[in-house]
Amino acid sequence: MNDDNLRKTRKTRVIRNPSRGIYDRETAYEIIDSTPMCHVSYTIDSQPYITPTFQWRKENWIYWHGSSASRFLKSAESTPVAINIFQFDGLVLARSGLHHSANYRSVTLFGIAELISDSRKEEALKDFVDNLIPGRWETLRPVKPQEIRATMILGMPIEEGSVKVRSGAPVDDAEDYDLPIWAGVIPFRTSIGEAVPDSVLPSHIDVPDHIKGFRLGRKID
Amino acid sequence: MNDDNLRKTRKTRVIRNPSRGIYDRETAYEIIDSTPMCHVSYTIDSQPYITPTFQWRKENWIYWHGSSASRFLKSAESTPVAINIFQFDGLVLARSGLHHSANYRSVTLFGIAELISDSRKEEALKDFVDNLIPGRWETLRPVKPQEIRATMILGMPIEEGSVKVRSGAPVDDAEDYDLPIWAGVIPFRTSIGEAVPDSVLPSHIDVPDHIKGFRLGRKID
Repeated sequence: MNDDNLRKTRKTRVIRNPSRGIYDRETAYEIIDSTPMCHVSYTIDSQPYITPTFQWRKENWIYWHGSSASRFLKSAESTPVAINIFQFDGLVLARSGLHHSANYRSVTLFGIAELISDSRKEEALKDFVDNLIPGRWETLRPVKPQEIRATMILGMPIEEGSVKVRSGAPVDDAEDYDLPIWAGVIPFRTSIGEAVPDSVLPSHIDVPDHIKGFRLGRKID
Repeated sequence: MNDDNLRKTRKTRVIRNPSRGIYDRETAYEIIDSTPMCHVSYTIDSQPYITPTFQWRKENWIYWHGSSASRFLKSAESTPVAINIFQFDGLVLARSGLHHSANYRSVTLFGIAELISDSRKEEALKDFVDNLIPGRWETLRPVKPQEIRATMILGMPIEEGSVKVRSGAPVDDAEDYDLPIWAGVIPFRTSIGEAVPDSVLPSHIDVPDHIKGFRLGRKID
């Protein structure tokens, strides 16, 4: 196995539009790091479930977390899951209805969700906060042992998966390019607004540099 | 059953933070209509799969589509699926690591994916395009019978589901509010850029009004 690539299997092989299928780890990591959110899919008694949740990556693992009482996390532990990280980049408007499409970056990962042990939880939570907002963790009130116990963290090695990316102009049938129909792309992107202080925050507490300098995709590793 | 509400079941009852759980149809529809995308989760041989795809709503049904050769669509037909529609609204930065959270709007739906028959496909595709960009369908090259055959559309009644919404400031432990730690929200939103014409579009084709006036959530029904 080439470690620079995700594992291509029956589940991850991109069949439709195979030119959109990418398997290199670097591209997958870039997309994973570009957004804090993911969707986790899991199965209980043949019934699929789906949950949007925070994710963070450290090296070749992806993690997500929640309350130890969470039905979602308890159900997913030690079972097969599918995770998707998705960025929508635009509407692709073609000259015919069927060629309308989306520009996007998407990573889908498969694996078994592993429970992170109590002894590794605090470090994992620090990774979560500091991956998202480098420098924030050390400014926070320290974590209490009962908070660690009340938190469940799942993780999964990033091994089996695929990346799909579409970008650029619509692709129409050759004979349709002469039609007098407007075609193009409406770009979408995520805008990050100015930080809004909690209304009860004392006015002498300035916005710290780690908030002022916030942008997505600035990983600590 | 109250038709103004989604059906609350063992699967859809919001247990964690039940105050974030909402079941009214109007709120669900507003979130569904606010974005063209969704994630569909389904199961093959106990293995969960997840796919981001376009969705559109007409009255109390949600639809998604793709190629008739799509492994994803063929696998999902007539099987239980879970669908999530998600809008990320911001990072909620608390005074302790564990109270960090997200502001978001999320709808999760459960049901059996039903195959839309050939005779209903063209109307459904028109609904897809015109829900997204009202007025565009009539400007397009008409759909060909072989395109209809090559397209598979799945639909599901919006019945069993739930809405979760979080907004506003962080919620910290009472004794932490006196700590000299910055807390607040970093808002996220989806920005829609100016339409980019296909580079091969003849220059005499102006941007039509349906593109100039584009905004999300403007449903035709």
